[in-house]
Amino acid sequence: MESLLEKIGQKAKAASRQLATLSTEKKNEILLSIAAHLRAEHKSILSANEFDVSAAINGLSSALIDRLLLTPERLNAIADDVEAVTKLSDPVGEIFDERVLANGMNAHKRRVPLGVVGVIYEARPNVTVDVASLCLKTGNAVILRGGKETVNTNSALTAVIHNALYSCGITQDAVQSIADPSRDRVLELLKLDKYVDMIIPRGGAGLHDFCRQHATVPVITGGIGVCHLFVDKSADIEKTIPVIHNAKVQRPSVCNALDTLLVHKEIAPKVLPLIEEDLLKANVEIRADEKAFALMNGAKQANDDDFGKEFLDLVLSVKIVKDVDEAIEHIWQYSSGHSESILTEDERAAKKFVDSVDSSAVFVNASTRFNDGGQLGLGAEVAVSTQKLHARGPMGLQELTTYKWIVGDVSGNYFVRS
Amino acid sequence: MESLLEKIGQKAKAASRQLATLSTEKKNEILLSIAAHLRAEHKSILSANEFDVSAAINGLSSALIDRLLLTPERLNAIADDVEAVTKLSDPVGEIFDERVLANGMNAHKRRVPLGVVGVIYEARPNVTVDVASLCLKTGNAVILRGGKETVNTNSALTAVIHNALYSCGITQDAVQSIADPSRDRVLELLKLDKYVDMIIPRGGAGLHDFCRQHATVPVITGGIGVCHLFVDKSADIEKTIPVIHNAKVQRPSVCNALDTLLVHKEIAPKVLPLIEEDLLKANVEIRADEKAFALMNGAKQANDDDFGKEFLDLVLSVKIVKDVDEAIEHIWQYSSGHSESILTEDERAAKKFVDSVDSSAVFVNASTRFNDGGQLGLGAEVAVSTQKLHARGPMGLQELTTYKWIVGDVSGNYFVRS
Repeated sequence: MESLLEKIGQKAKAASRQLATLSTEKKNEILLSIAAHLRAEHKSILSANEFDVSAAINGLSSALIDRLLLTPERLNAIADDVEAVTKLSDPVGEIFDERVLANGMNAHKRRVPLGVVGVIYEARPNVTVDVASLCLKTGNAVILRGGKETVNTNSALTAVIHNALYSCGITQDAVQSIADPSRDRVLELLKLDKYVDMIIPRGGAGLHDFCRQHATVPVITGGIGVCHLFVDKSADIEKTIPVIHNAKVQRPSVCNALDTLLVHKEIAPKVLPLIEEDLLKANVEIRADEKAFALMNGAKQANDDDFGKEFLDLVLSVKIVKDVDEAIEHIWQYSSGHSESILTEDERAAKKFVDSVDSSAVFVNASTRFNDGGQLGLGAEVAVSTQKLHARGPMGLQELTTYKWIVGDVSGNYFVRS
Repeated sequence: MESLLEKIGQKAKAASRQLATLSTEKKNEILLSIAAHLRAEHKSILSANEFDVSAAINGLSSALIDRLLLTPERLNAIADDVEAVTKLSDPVGEIFDERVLANGMNAHKRRVPLGVVGVIYEARPNVTVDVASLCLKTGNAVILRGGKETVNTNSALTAVIHNALYSCGITQDAVQSIADPSRDRVLELLKLDKYVDMIIPRGGAGLHDFCRQHATVPVITGGIGVCHLFVDKSADIEKTIPVIHNAKVQRPSVCNALDTLLVHKEIAPKVLPLIEEDLLKANVEIRADEKAFALMNGAKQANDDDFGKEFLDLVLSVKIVKDVDEAIEHIWQYSSGHSESILTEDERAAKKFVDSVDSSAVFVNASTRFNDGGQLGLGAEVAVSTQKLHARGPMGLQELTTYKWIVGDVSGNYFVRS
């Protein structure tokens, strides 16, 4: 007997055929229709969301409730975001790596949709619409699996997207949402390699590990950012303070926030007290190694496990290093390969750091917070990858595509391999 | 206690740091040294191979023995191939997708090695040297797992590569070979995600399935080619014969060889007898559907399972279709996404076929045998991917790399996200 997921997979695969050959104009028409339907049918969405929020109110933290909550303003912003995707250029159809082979035959690559994308995420209703619109823009069918706390909101959002697809003459199977909250459905989705071309988990380390362990579908893992910033001895002291502040304080709950500050021993006595003063004002808890602790007044002593840790909170570990090599060594040992930065006025130190640090983004005199699709000019972001295959760092529209080789043409020549 | 594979992984990861920053000149020096050592130490290699061949002679088919066998000429050709890799351009270090962001900050991607590559393959000693040289050229450390029948040959080849690495001052951990023939070691390699960045299986469907089921390391799957060629009603009859002959007969045992011929019903009465005449002379067994059978004299009747089958032999299934749409439909149902071709003089039929067929390479008036790294101008080939992530179709040097984002510079500006 076919399972529920088998059916969902079949339908998605069939839908992907229709989506793959849509023009950019048609895809933008669908997106505008989704935005219009989101605005027109806001009542059904907000009342479903009210239901989810009241069910969750006793079980979740206020931060998680806030993530889950939709308001008229937030729903409006989500619709705005969908409209913004119509302004992004469509990577599908792009021709690249064109060549004429020795026998005169033309060969090139053409960018095409992946086919079917699966996304597993937590209780963020905006992701439902966001991911659906990015997948539709790139001609992919999508299977969504949101957090169990948002089941009603996601059903309402999916119904609205279905109305928009219907009004544009597009199969509703293009966007499917798995409503059954059982984790078994996630496991089945991870093994649907017959139909699904890529799975993106968006969540914590546990979800990524679970996907890596069980998936037979290729998975993009990422999301975990143990981020380092190294203050070189040549750094401009005054300019370092706002960069460190920005990296740690602007949004501590996200993966590109700073976790560990490494400071060159020669600059530490001058710069650390200033950094401390700034961060304590912002309520950052500083956990310092022995040498750094001796240079500050308001820090705590770090434990070994404060290094290599993603805090996701206003906590920062600090370590004194003797040079850029020791900083690189520390990063090599403890980094998750997400984002690392060096603050320096020395070209050679910058070059050594950039050459040797193996992370998705390496920054020179810039905050780690820039590791983000919007900030790096991708126009959108579906995830941040810390693996090395397919995509590294922020994934935008292009990373939702693959290519096919097209070889030969209708010019009267028929080619055989010699 | 650390397992053998854990140690191998650690050593490979450490070696990858040294390899990542080598210049192209240094990497070419290593390759030339490997070639020289292969020529100088041919006796130890050939005698190890003799040992493997005599041990295998009662267990393996003569075709497999031939794959396993090294001769002085073959070893010389392997050394030539290593030298040829020095002539290929080095993708590492290439800068692309450069941009200046709204705040004036520079961001670009730099192509870098993947890190550690694992390759699992069968009893082909040439693969040992071939893969090692392509990985070294791209600055990757490699863990090799060859077939158990080649254990002695691979140990000898690895020892020679180690001598070359040593003579160049490079850690021998850059190329490691797993000698233990137990399949448990393969299983452990597949789960070494802490150290290994990509695994490439080179073998049959069983190996690829095994890897997909068990790997936590990203795996490139491929290798299975159920390849189709469609003769459109507008095809130039005379020109079709050599293309079909080439696709089926040139090397039937490989994945880009033709498996199923689809023929437009309007051209079938004229073209099929000519195709049959040609293929029967080449000892091809033709398994024809009912309508095609009626148009030929020397064909057998096909069973249902002759469609969607990779024959790897001088066997071809044939089916009459009513138009290009039915051909596309058949391919959609039965293809493994490797290589498909249309023979046509009609631009519109070609366009429809190319747009709708979702395979790693789609050919117009060309043999499926061109789906090959050498033929498509990549200069080398490490595998052919039929999955859609990272690489699709033939994988050359570039597909053994990833990129990292490099953001900011030493220009006096320090950047914070607003």
